[in-house]
Amino acid sequence: MSTSIKQPQVITCKAAVAWGAGQPLVVEEVEVNPPQPEEIRIKVVCTSLCRSDITAWETQAIFPRIFGHEASGIVESVGPGITEFNEGDHVLTVFIGECKTCRQCKSDKSNTCEVLGLERRGVMHSDQQTRFSIKGKPVYHYCAVSSFSEYTVVHSGCAVKVSSIAPLEKICLLSCGLSAAWNVADISKGSTVVIFGLGTVGLSVAQGAKVRGASRIIGVDTNPEKCEKAKAFGVTEFLNPNDNNEPVQQVIKRITDGGADYSFECIGDTGMITTALQSCCDGWGLAVTLGVPKLKPEVAAHYGLFLSGRTLKGSLFGGWKPKTDLPSLVNSFYQLADLHPLPFQMRLWSYDVV
Amino acid sequence: MSTSIKQPQVITCKAAVAWGAGQPLVVEEVEVNPPQPEEIRIKVVCTSLCRSDITAWETQAIFPRIFGHEASGIVESVGPGITEFNEGDHVLTVFIGECKTCRQCKSDKSNTCEVLGLERRGVMHSDQQTRFSIKGKPVYHYCAVSSFSEYTVVHSGCAVKVSSIAPLEKICLLSCGLSAAWNVADISKGSTVVIFGLGTVGLSVAQGAKVRGASRIIGVDTNPEKCEKAKAFGVTEFLNPNDNNEPVQQVIKRITDGGADYSFECIGDTGMITTALQSCCDGWGLAVTLGVPKLKPEVAAHYGLFLSGRTLKGSLFGGWKPKTDLPSLVNSFYQLADLHPLPFQMRLWSYDVV
Repeated sequence: MSTSIKQPQVITCKAAVAWGAGQPLVVEEVEVNPPQPEEIRIKVVCTSLCRSDITAWETQAIFPRIFGHEASGIVESVGPGITEFNEGDHVLTVFIGECKTCRQCKSDKSNTCEVLGLERRGVMHSDQQTRFSIKGKPVYHYCAVSSFSEYTVVHSGCAVKVSSIAPLEKICLLSCGLSAAWNVADISKGSTVVIFGLGTVGLSVAQGAKVRGASRIIGVDTNPEKCEKAKAFGVTEFLNPNDNNEPVQQVIKRITDGGADYSFECIGDTGMITTALQSCCDGWGLAVTLGVPKLKPEVAAHYGLFLSGRTLKGSLFGGWKPKTDLPSLVNSFYQLADLHPLPFQMRLWSYDVV
Repeated sequence: MSTSIKQPQVITCKAAVAWGAGQPLVVEEVEVNPPQPEEIRIKVVCTSLCRSDITAWETQAIFPRIFGHEASGIVESVGPGITEFNEGDHVLTVFIGECKTCRQCKSDKSNTCEVLGLERRGVMHSDQQTRFSIKGKPVYHYCAVSSFSEYTVVHSGCAVKVSSIAPLEKICLLSCGLSAAWNVADISKGSTVVIFGLGTVGLSVAQGAKVRGASRIIGVDTNPEKCEKAKAFGVTEFLNPNDNNEPVQQVIKRITDGGADYSFECIGDTGMITTALQSCCDGWGLAVTLGVPKLKPEVAAHYGLFLSGRTLKGSLFGGWKPKTDLPSLVNSFYQLADLHPLPFQMRLWSYDVV
């Protein structure tokens, strides 16, 4: 591996490369091009595995490719004209960027940047090219992050500078699985919350709901092993749908006297979005969908669920703006992490859910 | 017709009776029983026709029946124990009541009373019996109101006392078609609003959006005659889907630079609910459904519409609590009605929409 700090050159390093849908990743030597204008190159320190990586690996057609979209790292070099970052800065990568100039970025109600939104074609936002290759042949990106590599290049709008004293191995998860319990649902004290799927996203919702003072946090998962672990994150009641003869939404309506105040779908299953909506109460029940469905993309629900006062909303990245919100969240979370576990250690088993 | 004020007796009066699905109403002599405990009997002064009356008349199986659920009237007699109402009080009927004691009524976030919700079986809430008959044979109610009759009996929780100087012929519409522009959508100043269906509900949304300071109010309807009339209610742009080759949601996204801030489905068509969701913007787009669908009851939408920040919610009665909110709304609206037209005169053509 060779690097040149002053004048960035091609780096050759190791990366876990996916050669085809569902095929085992292979650690290969890859070339990583220098960052172009508006880009930075990062030495990846920690990366985690998200269910969305697996879904894309299983189902998409762009190969060879380097997955991974949750990472912490250190800036190795910067592209021409970059003033926001310097070599040595600690950063988190983000899979939805923040250009700070578009209609969405200018609104305080959105985090869905129009310029640096989800990148789906395996290339960089700026020139639609890749920065990775193997013996000169292109290797594609994932979500414009590709953190399953020792080095990666990202748009400067898709990286966030964080405190250099925040532990990179703990904060790396904040690069993706942020809780929607604050921003999106605005959970109120004393409320009842139901969470479908106790993977990392579900656990971070539980943690957020606990901090917001929810009095009941009902976790739903088909994996009984999650019961005890989930309680460490704030879940007060565990419900395994396989333990009941009646549909889970009926159980929830019964034990909550008509339905929960808030429900969160943290699985990525459109059928479960409907179940989440059915599990919350008339009048003000709010169902929040956070998962990326793997199969059927259509959400279907009886209109009466809405007319009787329910709301369905969704968000990516917990509704937070990456550059604007993440630095202070990192500071809060890594301090919190000294007191409470963060769910990142559960990341690897986050997908065998309901 | 005979009445006895002191000790209520059966009243015989005229009513428009539906004998079967889709069969013309027949004006018949009906008997109206005295009000029972918790009930009042009302002399109907004005009633309007809602699309929901027609839908039920076309599709439901409970006959003979007296439709009509939007009415103003004067209390003729009260049942045993009633203290809230006196003979001569001016009232509006409401199709969803307010018991003031259930979980929903106690919350300031709901108007969906658990005790006096939508009545679907054609009988009174209290004893599951009818108060109407023809020659002793039962005639069924609709929504526990049945205002297509000179006299009707309603639960005291389904009637609201209003100012005796409010013009009954103008306020009768407030018995149902209240705008959701305040409570449910909370439209902000300068925003862009799109309204699907310019019947009474759609026009009242337009009126509400105008009062809230929306800068663009785009009305969508397939009936070109509605264009000029809608402008009197605040619509700033009229869009007839039949005038365009591209889908209406694409037209809206194009002319609003990505989608409206708020969209309202005021037709009663689940396909249009999807269109409304597609017509509002990423990040904060809010689609509100107000119509009661006549055919397919399932709302279907791609999960990506939610994950990119859209919200879908619905409400009945504009989200207002009938007893709590209606009296002051009546006062505001009938004063407003001196300055601006109210949409009630359009009631009869409110259903030939998109």
